[in-house]
Amino acid sequence: MSAALPLAAADVYDAQRRLRGVAASTPALSHPTLDDIAGRSVVSKAEALQRTGSFKFRGAYNAVAALSPRERRRGVIGASSGNHAQALALAGRLLGVPVTVVVPHDAPKAKVDGARALGADIVAYHRQRDDRDALTDRLSVDHGYTVVPSSSAHAVMAGAGTVALELLWQAPVLTAILVPVGGGGLAAGTAVAAKHINPNIKVIGVEPQAAADTAASLQAGQLAELAAVPDTIADGLRHTSPAPLPWEINRVLLDGVVTVTDAQIVQAMGWAFKHLKVVAEPSGAVALAAMDGLDLPPGPVGVIISGGSVDLDAFHRLVATPPPRKEPALA
Amino acid sequence: MSAALPLAAADVYDAQRRLRGVAASTPALSHPTLDDIAGRSVVSKAEALQRTGSFKFRGAYNAVAALSPRERRRGVIGASSGNHAQALALAGRLLGVPVTVVVPHDAPKAKVDGARALGADIVAYHRQRDDRDALTDRLSVDHGYTVVPSSSAHAVMAGAGTVALELLWQAPVLTAILVPVGGGGLAAGTAVAAKHINPNIKVIGVEPQAAADTAASLQAGQLAELAAVPDTIADGLRHTSPAPLPWEINRVLLDGVVTVTDAQIVQAMGWAFKHLKVVAEPSGAVALAAMDGLDLPPGPVGVIISGGSVDLDAFHRLVATPPPRKEPALA
Repeated sequence: MSAALPLAAADVYDAQRRLRGVAASTPALSHPTLDDIAGRSVVSKAEALQRTGSFKFRGAYNAVAALSPRERRRGVIGASSGNHAQALALAGRLLGVPVTVVVPHDAPKAKVDGARALGADIVAYHRQRDDRDALTDRLSVDHGYTVVPSSSAHAVMAGAGTVALELLWQAPVLTAILVPVGGGGLAAGTAVAAKHINPNIKVIGVEPQAAADTAASLQAGQLAELAAVPDTIADGLRHTSPAPLPWEINRVLLDGVVTVTDAQIVQAMGWAFKHLKVVAEPSGAVALAAMDGLDLPPGPVGVIISGGSVDLDAFHRLVATPPPRKEPALA
Repeated sequence: MSAALPLAAADVYDAQRRLRGVAASTPALSHPTLDDIAGRSVVSKAEALQRTGSFKFRGAYNAVAALSPRERRRGVIGASSGNHAQALALAGRLLGVPVTVVVPHDAPKAKVDGARALGADIVAYHRQRDDRDALTDRLSVDHGYTVVPSSSAHAVMAGAGTVALELLWQAPVLTAILVPVGGGGLAAGTAVAAKHINPNIKVIGVEPQAAADTAASLQAGQLAELAAVPDTIADGLRHTSPAPLPWEINRVLLDGVVTVTDAQIVQAMGWAFKHLKVVAEPSGAVALAAMDGLDLPPGPVGVIISGGSVDLDAFHRLVATPPPRKEPALA
């Protein structure tokens, strides 16, 4: 069955060789308080500490590094207003490959500036007026750019899968891994890599309650589409349907998908700040948010904190308990 | 000359063996923006991600692990309202050694609760009325506890030195290391370990401008004492004079001490949040604050981000730019 999947463990190991000395080896963190909350040992893989602030760098770099010399000279293009844009920009800079990023006209200036500072050319499109994919394809054809999607590509999923290789090297005892699901590339890479190392491990996807397109698809047994763009603070996971290539893997390998509310996500961002000293963006915190009340046999779980692109004011607005109280003295 | 110092590199390697698999191997992080600001490559050793949130765990664990079975049964005692208290509490819990922590009556409840949750017994003293050290010594004598100081002890400095061993393993190219100086134990351990690996490396201490007791001591050529308890947001570095044992090392091995203002510290906390996704407390951010405008030959520098014990409201109050503006759109 596995032979028919569009990603093999060998591809993930190939990606690991390409990423060696390039991607950060992010830490696997734990804290007794989080163990107490979950009622089991919890190991957090802090991919927010990855270069450009999210796991996306692994897939983008692996995709660009896999290109032929001719393709590299022509350059790459990707559509993203967020983490994938910055990841692709850095990958191109490191490998000497020109990068074009297609961003919505109302994208946050800070994130776009991040990609531009890393040397990417920015092409803006109008979110209501223009067709992003058509624009990307046209530029790709006109200029000979290779398209690097944010999740639905073989090399991108393979790069993402290296997170799980590292995590299971750091914490081989894990009996389950919780992984954020947006397009589904990280979940697909995680499932392929983790089950290659330990066929008995459970890989559970986590989605915002309002953006549970993969959960709906698994339930329906086929790719489902949400009626409207989901309303959740987890802006990186606002997908109306799973990306096609990851879906082919996730429908077979995922052991389930659980959902979390925005309130749970915010609570988990606070846990990461307080106990792990890690900055997690809403999309990055969903797996940590799901560790509480899992319907799983006893055993240590890994959670992937997938990104940290959030500015301090937004973070504080979301996470801080409204009335700032003075800390009571001890006696 | 080195033979006369109260710490040898071999002691640090001993500590490393004890800490293997117990202390977190914290990541060495970098970001292009920080390199641009410093005008050189900057590698940040994120000890805020260490267990209990600071490098203190390394020294506390090493000190407790080095005790005889008889000493372990009797227990240990330490005086601290902050990171050392939590570090010692966890070390004791892991090694099955009873821990007593002596804390000021007005210590932040959150930090004291942290140590208590890890199983430590708490003894409060009145900051104005009582003599902390006399109380600690009396309890030590009465109960047979071994005193574990927060910096001025051989095993504590040796544990702290493992930060530099790890950092130079991760980033062997460094030509200098910037290290926060409070009591001076981390600086002393860093200098001994780093110069053993690379005799040409520069080790520069960093102090808050208002708490520059080690800078003053170096200048005077002898242990100097500040007239009053320093007023700085870096609460872990409010020392009026260097701790005696680290001072014997730092006076010989440190290549200098630079100072930073509270404004620089706050700026560095913001850099760590934004670019590294790491939560740094004021005392933990002083070395990062000093990377700008160094009087050093070209070459990559390491900075030790030594701790992250700061709550979100305090962090936001210190770091956030006062008027929260809306991010301008791209076009």
